Amino acid sequence: MLDQRAAGPRTPGTATRGETVPTVPPAETAADAVEVIALLERGRTLATPVLRAAVERLAPPMDTVAAYHFGWIDAAGNPAAGDGGKAVRPALAVLSAEVTGAAPETGVPGAVAVELVHNFSLLHDDLMDGDEQRRHRDTVWKVHGPAQAILVGDALFALANEVLLELGTVEAGRATRRLTTATRALIDGQAQDISYEHRDRVSVEECLEMEGNKTGALLASASSIGAVLGGADDRTADTLEKYGYHLGLAFQAVDDLLGIWGDPEATGKQTWSDLRQRKKSLPVVAALAAGGAASERLGELLSADAKSSDFATFSEAEFAARAALIEEAGGRDWTAEEARRQHRIAVEALHAVDMPERVRRQFTALADFVVVRKR
Amino acid sequence: MLDQRAAGPRTPGTATRGETVPTVPPAETAADAVEVIALLERGRTLATPVLRAAVERLAPPMDTVAAYHFGWIDAAGNPAAGDGGKAVRPALAVLSAEVTGAAPETGVPGAVAVELVHNFSLLHDDLMDGDEQRRHRDTVWKVHGPAQAILVGDALFALANEVLLELGTVEAGRATRRLTTATRALIDGQAQDISYEHRDRVSVEECLEMEGNKTGALLASASSIGAVLGGADDRTADTLEKYGYHLGLAFQAVDDLLGIWGDPEATGKQTWSDLRQRKKSLPVVAALAAGGAASERLGELLSADAKSSDFATFSEAEFAARAALIEEAGGRDWTAEEARRQHRIAVEALHAVDMPERVRRQFTALADFVVVRKR
Repeated sequence: MLDQRAAGPRTPGTATRGETVPTVPPAETAADAVEVIALLERGRTLATPVLRAAVERLAPPMDTVAAYHFGWIDAAGNPAAGDGGKAVRPALAVLSAEVTGAAPETGVPGAVAVELVHNFSLLHDDLMDGDEQRRHRDTVWKVHGPAQAILVGDALFALANEVLLELGTVEAGRATRRLTTATRALIDGQAQDISYEHRDRVSVEECLEMEGNKTGALLASASSIGAVLGGADDRTADTLEKYGYHLGLAFQAVDDLLGIWGDPEATGKQTWSDLRQRKKSLPVVAALAAGGAASERLGELLSADAKSSDFATFSEAEFAARAALIEEAGGRDWTAEEARRQHRIAVEALHAVDMPERVRRQFTALADFVVVRKR
Repeated sequence: MLDQRAAGPRTPGTATRGETVPTVPPAETAADAVEVIALLERGRTLATPVLRAAVERLAPPMDTVAAYHFGWIDAAGNPAAGDGGKAVRPALAVLSAEVTGAAPETGVPGAVAVELVHNFSLLHDDLMDGDEQRRHRDTVWKVHGPAQAILVGDALFALANEVLLELGTVEAGRATRRLTTATRALIDGQAQDISYEHRDRVSVEECLEMEGNKTGALLASASSIGAVLGGADDRTADTLEKYGYHLGLAFQAVDDLLGIWGDPEATGKQTWSDLRQRKKSLPVVAALAAGGAASERLGELLSADAKSSDFATFSEAEFAARAALIEEAGGRDWTAEEARRQHRIAVEALHAVDMPERVRRQFTALADFVVVRKR
């Protein structure tokens, strides 16, 4: 995998504390927005039929359970419009094929494989974490039981390899190998996430490493897999992975901001969602590492919360107080700056690789989109 | 996958009912036994260090959980002698490399990958089935919790692909593709197993299909993966898969006999183990399909058992009565004959492929071993 040490974490609570940093970093033009919408739409249009055909290969009842998970049917089995998510990964996979001069279609099996791996991990993570809701709907283990969540997750993982390897090319073998490495990182990240839950303190470095595994690795795959299928050399693939990895960290930093200060209408999550889940996300760990009065007071509160039997009945005001302390200690600003910093590293990586100017501009527009999104 | 229809199931309760059929079919010579022991030992000796090195790549605590599962350490983390099982799969994988004239070592990454997939499925199946014991020890989910069982299973599956694909050869890509197909069959089989539990009746055909998926497919992989890594063509690989698939069905038929009439001392399971678990194994479904007085009485009893709240407190005599009815209806004889029939198809397949005579004899000896084993 990529070495995220190359751009190691800054010390929270120094440079950025006290500054006024907007959550939305790069300027976005209307033309960019139109281009991003078109790219997301293209990825979705090319990948979805192939994804659906792959899922239909599953034996009953796994095909139905998977269709429910993807939002194609409801719990009763009736067709549903489905919220397939933002579809950033398919857009990246399809675009990356064009780096080598190949047609966007060359990236489609890669886009589908990455989506399958992503959804395999969602199915298993939701069960492990006991999460009952995803994308405004009950999770698979809630609706179809734990055994189906395990089994269908396994099946999607196997299907990801199948979709690539049945291409039968040397490039497909390389792509599968890289995707396997990313999947191992994904699993490592989930293992870290679980172990951090039982700990009082998590360092900023540990948090970034976990987020790099859970989010960076698969975005790295998405950003390079089309190019690999198009015959890109290892250096090109590595560089595109670097773009995707840091884009993933920017994405996750924004996600962590939205998890506390996001608009519930837009995110579909509860207010103070990550605080309710006692998640040791970036703003929290950065605030705790910052030192100072607000940081110390926050540490005392969260330690008490961990033992509190009243936590489940906390009021809005109690979460708001914790969010205010995180902000006061500099955790919000630090995370916003971290999103910008990771975004910058990602975009810089694009210049280390030869590609058509249009493709580079579109990669940049997607990176901008990831850090300005509101959901 | 292979078409098991080519050798479709016989109708139970006709030809074989009333015959006296020993559970132990082929004659075994002392020379064969020595040869089999040497083959199993060779597979274990070659594969185990590579398997251990692969598992050591896992991040903590997954490495420890996996080491516990493999029996290398106990629940407290102390080194353990470990009962790694019969190690038929590694022996087959290593032997299959020699079909092409390659060194046995060529098959080792294949042996390790197959073992990793097998153990991934054990970890997940034990959790899905709620099984608390395996190989005389508490299962991983019992000791380390459900999340670790899911996570480490996922990690072993990913590791299986990694071990093959890092070879970086065209053959490794082909081997991974075939192993992926087998893994999908494995998952299909587990889905069938789960759905059959909720049904009153399962046909002999359905039972054989499920066992072919759960046991046949991976033994098919084990029997061919070394050859694929050694550069065998598709026809050779398909034929070796046919050997392994039918060997797997023979293996499972014997397992089903041991699951009811096996010696608890040898199998490490309780008396009447499969009956206690209400497993719809081959002897049961064959007996139910046979017709006649004993078959009907058995059907009535098992239907009542399914609703009985006293089932958990059944005495030895009650299980013995059910076993006697299965035997009287011809389920035991039919299954023993089925084991012999599948064994015959497996051995015949060996003659459809060019290989050194010594290798063919050793494949045959392993097939004989599988049907004469007592545990």
